[in-house]
Amino acid sequence: MSSKDIITLLHGAGGSYMHNLIKQIFMTLDDNFGDIGLQMLDDGAVINNVVFTTDSFIVRPIFFKGGDIGRLSVSGTVNDIAMMGGDPVALSLGVVIEEGFPIHDLEKIVNSIKNTALEAGVHIVTGDTKVMEKGSLDKIIINTSGIGFRSKQLDHDIETLRKTREPKEWLVPLNLRPGDKIIVSGTIGDHAIAILSSREGIGFEANVSSDVAPLNKLINGILEIGGVADAKDPTRGGLADLLNDWSEKSKLGIYIREEDIPVKDEVRAASEFMGMDILELGNEGKAVIAVSPEYVKDVLNELWSIPQGKDASVIGEVRKDIEGVILETSIGGKRYVGRPLGDPVPRIC
Amino acid sequence: MSSKDIITLLHGAGGSYMHNLIKQIFMTLDDNFGDIGLQMLDDGAVINNVVFTTDSFIVRPIFFKGGDIGRLSVSGTVNDIAMMGGDPVALSLGVVIEEGFPIHDLEKIVNSIKNTALEAGVHIVTGDTKVMEKGSLDKIIINTSGIGFRSKQLDHDIETLRKTREPKEWLVPLNLRPGDKIIVSGTIGDHAIAILSSREGIGFEANVSSDVAPLNKLINGILEIGGVADAKDPTRGGLADLLNDWSEKSKLGIYIREEDIPVKDEVRAASEFMGMDILELGNEGKAVIAVSPEYVKDVLNELWSIPQGKDASVIGEVRKDIEGVILETSIGGKRYVGRPLGDPVPRIC
Ligand SMILES: Nc1ncnc2c1ncn2[C@@H]1O[C@H](COP(=O)(O)OP(=O)(O)OP(=O)(O)O)[C@@H](O)[C@H]1O
Ligand SMILES: Nc1ncnc2c1ncn2[C@@H]1O[C@H](COP(=O)(O)OP(=O)(O)OP(=O)(O)O)[C@@H](O)[C@H]1O
Ligand SMILES: [Mg+2]
Ligand SMILES: [Mg+2]
Ligand SMILES: [Mg+2]
Ligand SMILES: [Mg+2]
Ligand SMILES: [Mg+2]
Ligand SMILES: [Mg+2]
Repeated sequence: MSSKDIITLLHGAGGSYMHNLIKQIFMTLDDNFGDIGLQMLDDGAVINNVVFTTDSFIVRPIFFKGGDIGRLSVSGTVNDIAMMGGDPVALSLGVVIEEGFPIHDLEKIVNSIKNTALEAGVHIVTGDTKVMEKGSLDKIIINTSGIGFRSKQLDHDIETLRKTREPKEWLVPLNLRPGDKIIVSGTIGDHAIAILSSREGIGFEANVSSDVAPLNKLINGILEIGGVADAKDPTRGGLADLLNDWSEKSKLGIYIREEDIPVKDEVRAASEFMGMDILELGNEGKAVIAVSPEYVKDVLNELWSIPQGKDASVIGEVRKDIEGVILETSIGGKRYVGRPLGDPVPRIC
Repeated sequence: MSSKDIITLLHGAGGSYMHNLIKQIFMTLDDNFGDIGLQMLDDGAVINNVVFTTDSFIVRPIFFKGGDIGRLSVSGTVNDIAMMGGDPVALSLGVVIEEGFPIHDLEKIVNSIKNTALEAGVHIVTGDTKVMEKGSLDKIIINTSGIGFRSKQLDHDIETLRKTREPKEWLVPLNLRPGDKIIVSGTIGDHAIAILSSREGIGFEANVSSDVAPLNKLINGILEIGGVADAKDPTRGGLADLLNDWSEKSKLGIYIREEDIPVKDEVRAASEFMGMDILELGNEGKAVIAVSPEYVKDVLNELWSIPQGKDASVIGEVRKDIEGVILETSIGGKRYVGRPLGDPVPRIC
């Protein structure tokens, strides 16, 4: 990337293009501040025990199967706080609206924000409203930022990790150790396929709903069990991006088995039809969790006990004898899983 | 406003249209949470002594006389935290970019963010990057949210207020008392006129720079003196909107004198030429401050000692014998100053 270049859709698609842009341009803002600061490139930052994160949402369509931009905006920020080990508490709501946008649709979105905030137990405490002239913005975009405080479940979890390692104080990739099992909390790819099939003129319709949901209660549930080294939400760029992130930051290898990855039949069919790699598809109601082996059974049982975790599965483990991310395919072969250039479906969040 | 209606530019312009939209739609999200929550409609919220605020920036042009969208994005959020009595500490940076945007311009913006953050002493700790297809967003918009902690200067200030009233714990309109003097920290209208005259084809060019600047150090300086009941930044909707806000929330009258309001000659000329009310013009580097009378002299001296406050003036006072906001005009008449429908200049921030 040279500074003569221009921004492309891939620069916002959660893969290697975006990561390079962030490293080359935005990381120049890093001044090494915070308990977990910009340099960690984690789901959020931690400053004086306050977890702080932000996401802007540009999803199309704004109402889709299984959710809408309002539910997405709350869930996304709640989940980034939860994935650090924080209890999300308060959210800001910045809306930018195109002139001519129906107030009725705005009401629907705000109602969905309200319900999702209630579900997650968070509060909208501040906001901002801007309007752009017709034609200068496609409908509406929403930014939510959020703050949370250290959860007491995290204290317990970090305590349990001390039996097998010297953990950091928060859920970060540096906590990963060889032998940790990798769990996904449910089926992969639902959100991206639901978004695609909610679009008009895309040429297929899959009977799949988005998984968009706040996961803070799910995360607190497993932290209460213990042995959780890190958790991360596989949003833009999917499992492939997330596991590469873990492998790079922990300097450990990750081995996963294709046949153990839960995927809905419709999602598999749709992604084959579209020629997309399921591992690169974005999710908005899933967590990927690295768990110390002796806690895996209990963590799975906890996940299975709640609706959002009923399809949770162990899909692989952290290894020191390999580098990068390796997938054992269903037919028994092995391949490296690279960082995607970007999510194959644009504007999913 | 009925839900059959559509969003207009005025709904984002900081006046009565926007306030009604916020009250009718967004206030339904209020669940009475926080030390200062959504219901207070203040510059930000306070949760467990954490000050939290957000603003999205859609200004055009993105580079203007005296500043750019980067400097604006940092200053705006820093100032909202400072106006509550918080020390701004950490900012999030959510950028949404149009496909095709020059990376060189992005670098310039990020550099400006970096310099302004340094000037204010705040840190960018987390962010988000999204890209929209060419034609679906006009160039770039930025959201900054921020957190701050209670400043020790605020403790001192609130202590001094106790001599004359029972103050709240933060800088809020409910601290206002009859007799408090109203100070503006400098000339009014510079930002809106600088933005206007930076636009092509607008038909005039004024030699005015935007005042955009972080004011956290200015605010801490006067809190250290004491007697400051409230501070607020007169952004969209200008002085007129701000003073109406104070009057409504404090249930007190506000009396101001036109000839005491500092206005640059070029700003006066430009606003006369455009038929705009200077009181309704947005500012991005000014504070309006309500001060207990016995501290006014020292607060003014403090303001005059720093560049950002050199034109600070007392423009009026809080009164209980009048209702609403009354302006004594230069020619000696009196008129009510209503809430503007919205800022006369669109997309100034
Ligand atoms: N514009 C930016 N400025 C500063 N940091 C950024 C910016 N964009 C992204 N980052 C940082 O890069 C990392 C990756 O960001 P990303 O948005 O992919 O994380 P995420 O929110 O967990 O994922 P998603 O946005 O898909 O939900 C985060 O640590 C984030 O703080
Ligand atoms: N979309 C929204 N959702 C919830 N609250 C909102 C929303 N928009 C505005 N508010 C609230 O309304 C009040 C006024 O918002 P406004 O943006 O005018 O304040 P400000 O940031 O101080 O001014 P400016 O945006 O001009 O800098 C604030 O308390 C803000 O939290
Ligand atoms: Mg995340
Ligand atoms: Mg996120
Ligand atoms: Mg605002
Ligand atoms: Mg403000
Ligand atoms: Mg503001
Ligand atoms: Mg993000």
